[in-house]
Amino acid sequence: MSDLMRKAGELDAADPLGGLRDRFVLDDVVYLDGNSLGALPANVPAAVDDVVRRQWGELRIRSWEESGWWTAPERIGDRIAPLVGAAAGQIVVGDSTSVNVFKALVAAVRMAGEGRDEILVDATTFPTDGYIAESAARLTGRTLRPVTPAEVPAALGERTAAVLLNHVDYRTGRLHDLPALTAAVHAAGAYAVWDLCHSAGALPVGLDEHGVDLAVGCTYKYLNGGPGSPAYLYVRRDLQARFDSPLPGWNSHAEPFGMRGAYEPASGAPRGRVGTPDILSMLALEAALEVWDGVSIEAVRAKSLALTDFFEECVRAYAPPGRVESVTPAAHAERGSQVALRCDDAGDVMKRLIEREVVGDFRAPDVLRFGFTPLYIGFADVERAARVLAEVLGEALP
Amino acid sequence: MSDLMRKAGELDAADPLGGLRDRFVLDDVVYLDGNSLGALPANVPAAVDDVVRRQWGELRIRSWEESGWWTAPERIGDRIAPLVGAAAGQIVVGDSTSVNVFKALVAAVRMAGEGRDEILVDATTFPTDGYIAESAARLTGRTLRPVTPAEVPAALGERTAAVLLNHVDYRTGRLHDLPALTAAVHAAGAYAVWDLCHSAGALPVGLDEHGVDLAVGCTYKYLNGGPGSPAYLYVRRDLQARFDSPLPGWNSHAEPFGMRGAYEPASGAPRGRVGTPDILSMLALEAALEVWDGVSIEAVRAKSLALTDFFEECVRAYAPPGRVESVTPAAHAERGSQVALRCDDAGDVMKRLIEREVVGDFRAPDVLRFGFTPLYIGFADVERAARVLAEVLGEALP
Repeated sequence: MSDLMRKAGELDAADPLGGLRDRFVLDDVVYLDGNSLGALPANVPAAVDDVVRRQWGELRIRSWEESGWWTAPERIGDRIAPLVGAAAGQIVVGDSTSVNVFKALVAAVRMAGEGRDEILVDATTFPTDGYIAESAARLTGRTLRPVTPAEVPAALGERTAAVLLNHVDYRTGRLHDLPALTAAVHAAGAYAVWDLCHSAGALPVGLDEHGVDLAVGCTYKYLNGGPGSPAYLYVRRDLQARFDSPLPGWNSHAEPFGMRGAYEPASGAPRGRVGTPDILSMLALEAALEVWDGVSIEAVRAKSLALTDFFEECVRAYAPPGRVESVTPAAHAERGSQVALRCDDAGDVMKRLIEREVVGDFRAPDVLRFGFTPLYIGFADVERAARVLAEVLGEALP
Repeated sequence: MSDLMRKAGELDAADPLGGLRDRFVLDDVVYLDGNSLGALPANVPAAVDDVVRRQWGELRIRSWEESGWWTAPERIGDRIAPLVGAAAGQIVVGDSTSVNVFKALVAAVRMAGEGRDEILVDATTFPTDGYIAESAARLTGRTLRPVTPAEVPAALGERTAAVLLNHVDYRTGRLHDLPALTAAVHAAGAYAVWDLCHSAGALPVGLDEHGVDLAVGCTYKYLNGGPGSPAYLYVRRDLQARFDSPLPGWNSHAEPFGMRGAYEPASGAPRGRVGTPDILSMLALEAALEVWDGVSIEAVRAKSLALTDFFEECVRAYAPPGRVESVTPAAHAERGSQVALRCDDAGDVMKRLIEREVVGDFRAPDVLRFGFTPLYIGFADVERAARVLAEVLGEALP
């Protein structure tokens, strides 16, 4: 047994979150793709079966009230809230992340008023945010200006209406400074919209504490809600009355069943709703969130950093020198819960890794992405992944 | 046994669709709310369980390819297509009806060009269409003009960009003349957007035949997709290259995994996609659509009309005279698959009906709505519903 294997064993033995793995359905595969699709929580299949067979099959239409379907978007929003540092009543679940980016950005621009004609968007972000921001700018008559997060402070000014940023970069795993960037946006009189897809459930976000204006995120990564599970929208409480949605569907009406011709927005988080909520996926997510019972996000963050540190250590020890280069920041303050390694033949390497039951993913053109979900990944998994990676890298010289 | 009971028995015995009821999970309740939430198809629970346990739980991220998750929106769109008279390659499933109305209407206005500055919307329609149309008008700098469908021909003109109409009115069950109205819209040089929520799966729509430009619909009513199952968007093939989406999420990109900064729309139906598709709900819908195997929509229409005719006949025979008034057109050409009865105490009457296992729904302020799903409702159900309704109406005089 190598030193690193021994060290992994010690770290696992001392891990206060080690027992949480039992809350998931897992096999012998090292699953380092929870930053793309979280593993299945063990309680979800029975919960979904109940939704389908009893709530839909037996109660049918009555379930909108009796099974709490109608209020699910807010109720599940409140369940997500503590994980992102939000008090209750500010998050609503529904639609995709892209659709929520659209709602948030158009609403932010409207809050900023006519005098501010520019939207800043993270040029390094997941592309959908940029595409949607471009549409929001076009439809509201604003100019879109892509900048890197580092360039944001200098780009801010009297023209800035809103800034759309990703908390953690999907490719490099870089964690951006949400408190400082939000403060800078506010100092310029603009609105900050954060995309939490790659941070929620992996590290403390502190939405309320840092005065974030609006935020969105998906629920199928570190929140384990299942494939394509609905996203969420956060609107800070004191901004809710000014949240002017570009998608004012009947679910966001003050009196949805009044079937009234004139639109009058609901107060509070439900104002962010649009159409009929997607109940199967939504209640699967609700069940999935039970794995967080008694889990502190600070403990998750501590383990996440230990996992990524240890992975970097193992890769340095095992991999042929110079074969891969980490594009993830070494500093803890700048790192999310993934490690991204660059190598020319990343697509081929990932294919071979998956054949050997180490599952990460490939992001074009040359990045190997490994996500570390502290709820179900242990240190022995990390050591094994690095060891198999080293084997593959040694065999398949580009 | 009354004459009407005997007649019901004869009609059921002669019903070519009678055997289809076995494809659903039903009990002794007379479920006349399939126009709000379709009953559970019997094959769906096992299909969903497979999606959760095997596709998500075991294959995890691999299912995006191996289980066909990625292509589900187009594949399921093609499964819906024959039910609404569309050739393959023109329908994509995803998002809510409201979100799809937004996509369709903004895209239609853009197709119409700058010179046309007015949107007509059905003033009698389900409110969400009007709310969303108002937002589409505001964001594209057009004027929204609510008119009744009957007023549409006279309201059309050189200013008209697009017209949003409901095929069947959610409240009265009135079926509008899609071929004639579409032709009138086209004669004015405008674009016709149809909402099929209350017609798809209940009667032939003929999208291709009648040259409809864009259409949307939900899948949880007569298509039995489950609570909040994803909606769909139809863009006629020759318009697809000009479909300029206001929600250009990464799923609609020509190369979604290229993660490119510049947006380039996919060709064909996928251009109507937005974000990550909601797989659980989407694959539940796919399984639910299997109940249509071997079923002709013309046969469904014939039975639907026979059911609503018979319901009206039974109500006339049983109910205290003058106690209820049908607001559903008597003419077959103007009737969808529901009967709406007006009475002052409709809310209370519906509550009592549901207690006696006849389930319809109440629409404020004074409408009893009864939806007839030909796949699982029989003539004996109809007779019993009318009989119980008459009892309730006789007891609870307002």
